[in-house]
Amino acid sequence: PFSVGSHGSSFAHRSELRQAKRIVVKLGSAVVTRGDECGLALGRLASIVEQVAMLQNQGREMMIVTSGAVAFGKQRLRHEILLSQSVRQALHSGHNQLKDMSLPVLEARACAAAGQSGLMALYEAMFTQYSTCTAQVLVTNLDFHDDEKRQNLNSTLQELLRMNIVPIINTNDAVVPPPEPNSDLQGVISIKDNDSLAARLAVEMKADLLIALSDVEGLYDSPPGTDDAKFIDIFYPGDQQSITYGTKSRVGIGGMEAKVFAMLKKILVFLQVKAALWALQGGTSVVIANGTNPKVTGHVITDIVEGKKVGTFFSEIKPAGPTVEQQTEMSRNSGRTLASLHPDQRSEIICHLAELLTERQEEILAANKMDMDLAVNAGHLPPAMLNRLSLSPAKLNSLAIGLRQISVAAQDSVGRVLRRTRVAHNLELEQVTVPIGVLLVIFEARPDCLPQVSALAIASGNALLLKGGKEAANTNHVLHKLTQEALSMHGVKEAVQLVSTREEVEDLCRLDKMIDLIVPRGSSQLVRDIQRAAKGIPVLGHSEGICHVYVDANASIDKVLKIVRDSKCDYPAACNAMETLLIHRDILRTPLFDQIIDMLRTEIHAGPRFASYLTFSPSEAKSLRTEYGDLECCMEVVDSMQEAVDHIHKYGSSHTDVIITENEDTAEQFLQQLDSACVFWNASSRFADGYRFGLGAEVGISTARIHARGPVGLEGLLTTKWVLRGDGHTVADFSEHGTMKYLHENQPVGQPLAGQRDSN
Amino acid sequence: PFSVGSHGSSFAHRSELRQAKRIVVKLGSAVVTRGDECGLALGRLASIVEQVAMLQNQGREMMIVTSGAVAFGKQRLRHEILLSQSVRQALHSGHNQLKDMSLPVLEARACAAAGQSGLMALYEAMFTQYSTCTAQVLVTNLDFHDDEKRQNLNSTLQELLRMNIVPIINTNDAVVPPPEPNSDLQGVISIKDNDSLAARLAVEMKADLLIALSDVEGLYDSPPGTDDAKFIDIFYPGDQQSITYGTKSRVGIGGMEAKVFAMLKKILVFLQVKAALWALQGGTSVVIANGTNPKVTGHVITDIVEGKKVGTFFSEIKPAGPTVEQQTEMSRNSGRTLASLHPDQRSEIICHLAELLTERQEEILAANKMDMDLAVNAGHLPPAMLNRLSLSPAKLNSLAIGLRQISVAAQDSVGRVLRRTRVAHNLELEQVTVPIGVLLVIFEARPDCLPQVSALAIASGNALLLKGGKEAANTNHVLHKLTQEALSMHGVKEAVQLVSTREEVEDLCRLDKMIDLIVPRGSSQLVRDIQRAAKGIPVLGHSEGICHVYVDANASIDKVLKIVRDSKCDYPAACNAMETLLIHRDILRTPLFDQIIDMLRTEIHAGPRFASYLTFSPSEAKSLRTEYGDLECCMEVVDSMQEAVDHIHKYGSSHTDVIITENEDTAEQFLQQLDSACVFWNASSRFADGYRFGLGAEVGISTARIHARGPVGLEGLLTTKWVLRGDGHTVADFSEHGTMKYLHENQPVGQPLAGQRDSN
Repeated sequence: PFSVGSHGSSFAHRSELRQAKRIVVKLGSAVVTRGDECGLALGRLASIVEQVAMLQNQGREMMIVTSGAVAFGKQRLRHEILLSQSVRQALHSGHNQLKDMSLPVLEARACAAAGQSGLMALYEAMFTQYSTCTAQVLVTNLDFHDDEKRQNLNSTLQELLRMNIVPIINTNDAVVPPPEPNSDLQGVISIKDNDSLAARLAVEMKADLLIALSDVEGLYDSPPGTDDAKFIDIFYPGDQQSITYGTKSRVGIGGMEAKVFAMLKKILVFLQVKAALWALQGGTSVVIANGTNPKVTGHVITDIVEGKKVGTFFSEIKPAGPTVEQQTEMSRNSGRTLASLHPDQRSEIICHLAELLTERQEEILAANKMDMDLAVNAGHLPPAMLNRLSLSPAKLNSLAIGLRQISVAAQDSVGRVLRRTRVAHNLELEQVTVPIGVLLVIFEARPDCLPQVSALAIASGNALLLKGGKEAANTNHVLHKLTQEALSMHGVKEAVQLVSTREEVEDLCRLDKMIDLIVPRGSSQLVRDIQRAAKGIPVLGHSEGICHVYVDANASIDKVLKIVRDSKCDYPAACNAMETLLIHRDILRTPLFDQIIDMLRTEIHAGPRFASYLTFSPSEAKSLRTEYGDLECCMEVVDSMQEAVDHIHKYGSSHTDVIITENEDTAEQFLQQLDSACVFWNASSRFADGYRFGLGAEVGISTARIHARGPVGLEGLLTTKWVLRGDGHTVADFSEHGTMKYLHENQPVGQPLAGQRDSN
Repeated sequence: PFSVGSHGSSFAHRSELRQAKRIVVKLGSAVVTRGDECGLALGRLASIVEQVAMLQNQGREMMIVTSGAVAFGKQRLRHEILLSQSVRQALHSGHNQLKDMSLPVLEARACAAAGQSGLMALYEAMFTQYSTCTAQVLVTNLDFHDDEKRQNLNSTLQELLRMNIVPIINTNDAVVPPPEPNSDLQGVISIKDNDSLAARLAVEMKADLLIALSDVEGLYDSPPGTDDAKFIDIFYPGDQQSITYGTKSRVGIGGMEAKVFAMLKKILVFLQVKAALWALQGGTSVVIANGTNPKVTGHVITDIVEGKKVGTFFSEIKPAGPTVEQQTEMSRNSGRTLASLHPDQRSEIICHLAELLTERQEEILAANKMDMDLAVNAGHLPPAMLNRLSLSPAKLNSLAIGLRQISVAAQDSVGRVLRRTRVAHNLELEQVTVPIGVLLVIFEARPDCLPQVSALAIASGNALLLKGGKEAANTNHVLHKLTQEALSMHGVKEAVQLVSTREEVEDLCRLDKMIDLIVPRGSSQLVRDIQRAAKGIPVLGHSEGICHVYVDANASIDKVLKIVRDSKCDYPAACNAMETLLIHRDILRTPLFDQIIDMLRTEIHAGPRFASYLTFSPSEAKSLRTEYGDLECCMEVVDSMQEAVDHIHKYGSSHTDVIITENEDTAEQFLQQLDSACVFWNASSRFADGYRFGLGAEVGISTARIHARGPVGLEGLLTTKWVLRGDGHTVADFSEHGTMKYLHENQPVGQPLAGQRDSN
């Protein structure tokens, strides 16, 4: 299943790492040795073994270069020495007093020798659980200088790999020269040795990938912890001048110690990067990553092999385009200019884009044809998807009409004054609408999303990152080009960026310092996935719509039949379609009831109470909290409007709920009590929609309780800022002994843009 | 350090578990055996070993009852059999083809015998890394029936514990009767045995705590996965009728298999709960928890011992009050009634509370005196904290005045129509303000927060959970009683709940299905902690305020001196105090510059550019992104207003930023371009405050980009819903062939409450 990497040239992209067959995993001593207060070294080691065993069982050839024998041995020798010093005391006390005793200084090489057997026993005990055999190989760097030794080592390892055995390689510390003074600090010596050892070994064995794990995230462009430090996701050897190896947080290390530490870390930078570059030149891809971060330890190796953005990836080939982080930066900067344009200018851009959609129709349709051909040839897209993927002159035309509507809405979005207060004489406060910042919009195989969403972002002055589906890559490329062409007319070309289809959505959702709001446009599965992945970034959207229609005892037959049919059958897959029909008990066994059943002609799942009334038996609902999304629904009986409200509060998703009644009091009670985003009286649930509400452009429907709720128009992409204009005012002026008094007079909010002030 | 639990009576509260000295940890086979695709069994086992070793090293006496020998042996025997079946094939193929071969059926007891040595080797290899000795003890249930055998076992284990050794106990499967047919499914047999074994052992050894880990979260009050299932946090034996043992997700198990599974699980419920109750009656506390959830595995045991809410805790003593989940439920229900009151009624409640604060002053001050006495006696509270804790008639009086202001604001909060649209003839849409739902407000040792926050919640119709500091427990208790007294006048007493000081903030932040918004009131450290802990619940607040004042080349000397002094020195610890002073290059070496330095008299940290201009050298700023919160600030030089804006965008926290200039164009550019929550011209940064802005009651200051931004008034506690009133309207009526047309006429939004409609 794995093509052996075309050796001699390493992989160019992370996504190609999936094909790596022969992999060397290097574990730094920080990964292997005992944990401190927060780390769990043993669990860490076990999950690394688990990942290696899993990859081995997939048919890959795994090798481990391990550190840690020194630290293991130190632990063991200390314990032995202490025991022999005070056997009685240690054995006869309930408390463990070992840690209080003073410890002897131990020689590193002796520790290594003492630790070796324990470490190997641990590896073997762990790998045995995966029916995976291991073999211990002790080497020194010198073994690589002697051609014969190197040949022997090579053929031994080849043979082990051929027998499906995982070689575990360590330096034979007992026979190397003694360490230089101080170099034992932080276990540096073994890391140092193992970096070049792992690199040499990877090249010698023609490994496709070297994963070097230690306790830092990877490389930074400046010393990490400083203001400007940025993590380097992909490192190109040409950029070598500008990197800094990630040190741990400097908290707790002060004065001389910190300086020594920093100095040693610099040596490490040099050595580790040098080793990585050496391996890269030898044709092995390299990833340097953190093997001690508890959030990722359980899957750091498999994530790297799956091509996810973990650690720093070394690549010889620099891609032409900017990275997604650079794109975000560009769009934020250009977006700030976009936000400062006059509303008319933003309108112009959108109108121009609308024109381009019809003017450059041929270009768009040609690209779309390429995507369609590819999809048809691949043959895996269902017809509904193909339909969404395909563009036509008619579709482009109606897109252009929609864009012109958005261009009108753009006139009155950014810079609207919501509140104006005269705080004091010559101290004027305004609350003004402003863009949110950088939006990330993720959409699936529907290229018409691109100009639509771009227009919404432009209208609201937001920077935009677009992530479209692979299927529409060619169409999206052209549409994005046209969008940038339109943006160029006012010098804000870079405000809208199209992210490469190679980027993983999950990786994008982690850019929480750079992106302010995520808007998923697509299936509820997409929304759910993104809500799960987006840590720390708000997501505008809804993942479920369990909408109810309640038929009151006083309902009009005609309205019931019309509304229930429309709510369920108009478009059953929509989030605003009815999923549960609640009927008042009095309606049971009336002609209306029979008419509803006749009309629905859908599969009905009976709620427990409804089921108890029935002689015939439709299938019982598995849950009253189901979104069928099809010509199916749940039906349940309630005693009163109040019971309907309670049912909906308990089982609903606060999306849209409807009452059908002729009794105005009952209706108003229902509308008042129910805390769903949309509550309707005698109207179909399907009206819950931005266009039908008259909001113009629809950003989406939100079931969140804060920010925007229900169908969201452009205002969902806006926030506010407070602008205060004074004349040297200080709060001290308003203190007990001050000269000023707060007025707090609310003023009318006429003009869309600020500027005037009392010039007294 | 650990008092041996008063044996014979188990602990009543989770918090007492910290005192447990002798602890039995039972590992179900799901915890011990190999992981499936998603589980990482080896890593799991390693972190359990790590936690047990840590607790042992704290001086506790740990025992492990382990399952898994059957599963381990099965794995091993299969491998052996397959190898012997096809040695050549297995050895000479690069791929692991073992999994494709058909496997023989293995006898459980043989597997157990084969697995025992591997399992023990693994435990020993792991515990050795913590210098912890283990001892293998094989027993059968029968050993407990024979008094002599039981005595022998007891004294052996006592001796091992005395020698600081961790006994690892397993059933001696090789000598028990053969398992009944089918009972080997899901490894049930070993769990079954081990539950009663662990319980017997815990009681026999007078353990303080039995932790039983398997692959389910604990007990539920109905079958988990059904609509009504609620997790049971604390289980009282009296409630025994209403529990269901948590099964795993039923996905993938259908038909007969599911039924068998359910049946077996029922046996498990019975056996595991019976065992737990038996141990409880014997004086051992019991917690049943999930040892396979990757999110908590690394600390499930230590969390339980620290008293955190993990799994189901068995307690013999039922506390008088409701649980926090019940409190949330009560407050949500009562809050819904509160929201449906007339605004005048909510005002009345708040006014009544204001009256009670003065009328019942003595009661409040007496409780406060108790808290103060306790704090003074304990002697660990710093004077500033004591000052915050203490109430006085004057403080209560100004509190009452504040509450009356909130009661006025309450008139115009819930039910305000923000938007009214005539969608079509007789189809009227309104967007109305409504409460958010259930708020959780967490505050520290400041009891005056309680009535203030309660009044805000009541004014906005929200349900409220209050979590105050331990130091103010007595005062908070009285204040909460008075709040409920005021709420009672309109039958909504339960809308505001005071959470026990015993509850951990972290546990509350996990109630994401029940709480809609968290508002932390206190130090920025508190806010940061809560933002970190609150997974899935929005937090209204700000964790940092890095505010800038930019002095332009055209600034007035007087205004600069006034505003800079006020911004930095008025209250340096406030979040709206200046942290960085940016000055235009032209001001350097002018008299104004010297005057600023003279006036500031604070410690100045020079930015890199400023430092390069200086002959004298103040300490260089470690980071341009520092919140000093004291009479210290950073100072940096910029070339222009534009550079100031760029600097603030790069290093600021989007809280409040100020420009001082006489040039209106420059000022307006600054106000326009900067995207902070508050942007000021010629006014002190200290004006960024709800009261000073004239918002009346202040909920807090938010630096989030969505929902509410900057100083937040009551509107931050409100959201909206859409109310649509129709007359049988369906979307089909508006389709191409329908009879209706959308009008989308915006209507004036005069009246605060809805009701009228076109009765044509």
